[in-house]
Amino acid sequence: MIVIMSANSTDTEIEAVRRHIVDRGLRAQVVQGVERRIVGVIGAITVELQGELELMRGVAEVVRVSKPYKLASREFHPDSTVVSIGKAGVKIGAAHFAVFAGPCVVESDDQVLATAKAVKAAGAKVLRGGAYKPRTSPYSFRGMGEDGLKILSAASAETGLPVITDVMSVRDVETVYRYADVLQIGARNMQNFNLLDEVGKVDKPVMVKRGFAATYEDWLLAAEYVMAGGNKSVILCERGIRTFETYTRNTMDINAIPVIRKLSQLPIVSDPSHGTGKWYLVPPLANASAAAGCDGLIIEVHPSPDTAKSDGPQSLIFENFARLMAQVAAVRAALAGAAKISPHS
Amino acid sequence: MIVIMSANSTDTEIEAVRRHIVDRGLRAQVVQGVERRIVGVIGAITVELQGELELMRGVAEVVRVSKPYKLASREFHPDSTVVSIGKAGVKIGAAHFAVFAGPCVVESDDQVLATAKAVKAAGAKVLRGGAYKPRTSPYSFRGMGEDGLKILSAASAETGLPVITDVMSVRDVETVYRYADVLQIGARNMQNFNLLDEVGKVDKPVMVKRGFAATYEDWLLAAEYVMAGGNKSVILCERGIRTFETYTRNTMDINAIPVIRKLSQLPIVSDPSHGTGKWYLVPPLANASAAAGCDGLIIEVHPSPDTAKSDGPQSLIFENFARLMAQVAAVRAALAGAAKISPHS
Amino acid sequence: MIVIMSANSTDTEIEAVRRHIVDRGLRAQVVQGVERRIVGVIGAITVELQGELELMRGVAEVVRVSKPYKLASREFHPDSTVVSIGKAGVKIGAAHFAVFAGPCVVESDDQVLATAKAVKAAGAKVLRGGAYKPRTSPYSFRGMGEDGLKILSAASAETGLPVITDVMSVRDVETVYRYADVLQIGARNMQNFNLLDEVGKVDKPVMVKRGFAATYEDWLLAAEYVMAGGNKSVILCERGIRTFETYTRNTMDINAIPVIRKLSQLPIVSDPSHGTGKWYLVPPLANASAAAGCDGLIIEVHPSPDTAKSDGPQSLIFENFARLMAQVAAVRAALAGAAKISPHS
Amino acid sequence: MIVIMSANSTDTEIEAVRRHIVDRGLRAQVVQGVERRIVGVIGAITVELQGELELMRGVAEVVRVSKPYKLASREFHPDSTVVSIGKAGVKIGAAHFAVFAGPCVVESDDQVLATAKAVKAAGAKVLRGGAYKPRTSPYSFRGMGEDGLKILSAASAETGLPVITDVMSVRDVETVYRYADVLQIGARNMQNFNLLDEVGKVDKPVMVKRGFAATYEDWLLAAEYVMAGGNKSVILCERGIRTFETYTRNTMDINAIPVIRKLSQLPIVSDPSHGTGKWYLVPPLANASAAAGCDGLIIEVHPSPDTAKSDGPQSLIFENFARLMAQVAAVRAALAGAAKISPHS
Repeated sequence: MIVIMSANSTDTEIEAVRRHIVDRGLRAQVVQGVERRIVGVIGAITVELQGELELMRGVAEVVRVSKPYKLASREFHPDSTVVSIGKAGVKIGAAHFAVFAGPCVVESDDQVLATAKAVKAAGAKVLRGGAYKPRTSPYSFRGMGEDGLKILSAASAETGLPVITDVMSVRDVETVYRYADVLQIGARNMQNFNLLDEVGKVDKPVMVKRGFAATYEDWLLAAEYVMAGGNKSVILCERGIRTFETYTRNTMDINAIPVIRKLSQLPIVSDPSHGTGKWYLVPPLANASAAAGCDGLIIEVHPSPDTAKSDGPQSLIFENFARLMAQVAAVRAALAGAAKISPHS
Repeated sequence: MIVIMSANSTDTEIEAVRRHIVDRGLRAQVVQGVERRIVGVIGAITVELQGELELMRGVAEVVRVSKPYKLASREFHPDSTVVSIGKAGVKIGAAHFAVFAGPCVVESDDQVLATAKAVKAAGAKVLRGGAYKPRTSPYSFRGMGEDGLKILSAASAETGLPVITDVMSVRDVETVYRYADVLQIGARNMQNFNLLDEVGKVDKPVMVKRGFAATYEDWLLAAEYVMAGGNKSVILCERGIRTFETYTRNTMDINAIPVIRKLSQLPIVSDPSHGTGKWYLVPPLANASAAAGCDGLIIEVHPSPDTAKSDGPQSLIFENFARLMAQVAAVRAALAGAAKISPHS
Repeated sequence: MIVIMSANSTDTEIEAVRRHIVDRGLRAQVVQGVERRIVGVIGAITVELQGELELMRGVAEVVRVSKPYKLASREFHPDSTVVSIGKAGVKIGAAHFAVFAGPCVVESDDQVLATAKAVKAAGAKVLRGGAYKPRTSPYSFRGMGEDGLKILSAASAETGLPVITDVMSVRDVETVYRYADVLQIGARNMQNFNLLDEVGKVDKPVMVKRGFAATYEDWLLAAEYVMAGGNKSVILCERGIRTFETYTRNTMDINAIPVIRKLSQLPIVSDPSHGTGKWYLVPPLANASAAAGCDGLIIEVHPSPDTAKSDGPQSLIFENFARLMAQVAAVRAALAGAAKISPHS
Repeated sequence: MIVIMSANSTDTEIEAVRRHIVDRGLRAQVVQGVERRIVGVIGAITVELQGELELMRGVAEVVRVSKPYKLASREFHPDSTVVSIGKAGVKIGAAHFAVFAGPCVVESDDQVLATAKAVKAAGAKVLRGGAYKPRTSPYSFRGMGEDGLKILSAASAETGLPVITDVMSVRDVETVYRYADVLQIGARNMQNFNLLDEVGKVDKPVMVKRGFAATYEDWLLAAEYVMAGGNKSVILCERGIRTFETYTRNTMDINAIPVIRKLSQLPIVSDPSHGTGKWYLVPPLANASAAAGCDGLIIEVHPSPDTAKSDGPQSLIFENFARLMAQVAAVRAALAGAAKISPHS
């Protein structure tokens, strides 16, 4: 941590800052610049100390040097994490790529089973489907609950695809755990800290979607919550952020894919369905995500999107999903075979 | 709802749209423009129907005309709601203005009681304080839990100030309800829909803080969730939004104050402590909020901010809080005495 | 245009709206909904009329149905524009893909010539380089001016690569026109309307970069300015938008690529150098852009980025640029060979 | 400037960084932390050096400590600037408050003169009016040009009010200078650096409006451009920023008012007309701005907003402007008479 003094700070003020740091059991090192002085703080630093220093006279700014997340930081964990999903042991991360696909929301046995078969045939490795749905309006359909989980489970049994589904509340963790192979934390719950604590205690993978106004740091701290609870099988998912542009439902932040790969060892998945909100934008953004280096995709697929109970406009029909899978595979193969960028020398 | 056809849509396509609407039991009225045609949809419209129409051939866009919230809409509830808080019956809304003040987080009996006495003496009507704290990092102090609630409750008993405090999880609603007079839904939980459902069932007021990336509509829909559960005593709280500007912790959206007063009958409170993140910005923004017509303020006050366990940099000392209360009162009196703006004729 | 009346508007108010529209020589058609009435406006609508109607009593909202841009709209110009650049006739748009590459800013003959040769060898079609540089600080190096243009021109003569360079001021259009093959309007000048007018009069292509807070509509209206002046050879360039995320210089909006292809017939180029601000993010975002369907790329390349006078951190070295070109070609070939997505039936 | 090394940087890398700094004629001081090392850079630092260091191996981040603006910084100019406007010597800044008012765009002699008389009678000190208008669409009315300036000038002669008007292009600076008392740089031109250079050479005040995606630092650097040219009479104007909220035209950033007062000695004016886009939001936001401590206001006033050629929906009628002036005066008097906030001790 570095304390930047204002240009006209006095010797008394800088001495008070130095003493405050030393009183907390840390070391302080003063650097005399041309325009102003800075104080380096050395030792185990707390958020509280930062607040205290910011309030001291003569202090212009306090800059944190260390990253606040450790368990989710590649700096301390250079090897990419490989997460293993379900009894089938579907792998994601490092060299392993996996596509999760299925309907936004579970509506019926037939809908889910037909979709599960179609996406499996096209190469998807995990079945997605919502039983508990976060809905902006209290008057929208909010999912079938445990009945929906049973439908997913049955389709999983028949196709062998493991299941990923939303858990929205600490109250539902136990139930969802019984049926699902990956527990999904939705964007709106990314800072539902009690829920993060709770899924940190389970022994199944957790996928943490980025909140639509979350910085990379906020997002990695959400992963850190889960990992601090003991669960190291965390997958991150970029699903678009909120910007001033309203033509698309969200703005996919494709920058996030290589950035997260640099900052963290955890697998990163891309969700172009929510990131764009329009089915015809899903394929170009799925391909873009693959080209940017994501470890997986999560895609909404529906037998007949025009009658879907949720997110129809962003769902792909079976045929287009199969074509997209071929496109993604071609893009990944092309990049696997091409020359690699090297670090600057 | 209005369906806008693309310029080159065919008669067959528009007929299909018309028929789809009629098949859903609604009426359709086609308007022939110069460049394109539009179809007005008349009847009880669902979100699902909007999705279905967006997917039809020849449709360029679907525009919703009605607002999705009803219980929280001034259009249907022209009279301002007055919310009554605690046994003392502190009123907020319409002509009633109230200030909530206290520490960010409960640390000790002494801290809370001293603060409660100081803010009461300065004119605050409600004591705020956090026992369960949402913290971005899992390693920060997360509050004293029920012990903190007991401390707040004791200070309330001694001073007569009702208490407002955060509830973060469905699991804690019952406990918080026992001790608090207003249940606060924090910005990060504004779309924790299960929690909104739960506080919709209690018979004490709920304050819904705006999510830092929530539109006015998202926010009013969060209030609608609570009201749809049966609880009509909802207070809204603007606490700053996330923008590209990083000098301040958030950007206070003062526009929100008169806009919410126009759109909704519910009282609107301003939180300049979180909205700015710096104590010296709290007074100008509190005064600005009062001048813009808010129904109340919520302000962080601490006996010695430089040792606070949370949010010290944005907390006021007792003396400054008292001065600010005098300033706010002066601003409100000035505007009460001045000529009123009249509607355009 | 559609006028949405408030739920409690009166017959007198709606009649006044109808009459106002008719008085302007247009037709009005009233649609009676369940909750409220709407008035469709038919005829040649002005922005002024929209303002007038918004101010009338009983009016809740006025929604524009037609797009405000026409010349830049694919709805009216279904065939993709192919822009031809320089004497060499380099083509971009429709089936033609082109990469523009070179240093951010012209520093010397040697630097530009060496870079031009290197990027040409790697497959670039156009040489980029800045002679007039927009700089946030008045104390930064602002380019060599006409001397820089001469250096670019000499490198162009030697390599046969046409030149793209910034024009920042109406005063410089004539000078830049003499040396450049494409005139670039930077993001900060996207709404410098006098400059847009001026480049609308020249007979060389213009590339309009998206302002970092410009919506798609703002951006297409900037293109419309140029086209309204008579110049139909317009190229659009996505270069990242400003969001709350500060880890990257900007957030690349890859959604923009397929959206612009849908809304407009003009070629769309991607600039991952400015869109990320970090050289190691340029290759993944360049590949992502190609996978999303862009018509070209503009990439900063420098012989030794660590001594560059501007934007060193985002410049590629020659070797990495060559590798990136191979990657992009592989991605494009892969997608050209894969099955195509079909429209929903 | 501080160079933060990555946790696993080597001694060789840190030595290379140190040497690079020393080679540029500066001093380097290494601070050994627990997790990582940092290098303080002491001396006259360039933006180029920052770029060079960011590219070196082992460097995680480079943090700038000094502010990039000097002439516009209160740290170096503690006394508030008082800007004097026109022959009348209207003062703004420090204890002097001034309101600028008038139509968005000049339409006719009568319109301007009537408005000038009305706003003067209500207490406005400066007449605003646009002769050259930035318009998003090329098809909107773009102002009367020099004829408009003559109309403003005539109204100024008759009422004694000095005039503020937009200058949009380097080409127009001379003409606008002849007629205007304050040259206004609009939000879209805030980073039109050639224009900033040009108005830096004139001997009349310049008002720099904040770009709608400009940070405080970008904005103060725009002022720095003007001041670096020699013109120290700069006024800053907050006019709303672009956020995800679309109900209002822009989001007024009232935080900016006290922040700019802290960071800079220059006067800060608030423009609630553009900051909200709706006339009924102008009074609450004008009052809020005054309560937050702005040095002046700029307000759109029109004799009959429903026939205005531009921005009718956000213009006040004469009566409401007069009432607003009384409200603002009351708010300012109230705060002048109230106890002052004191610095923390």
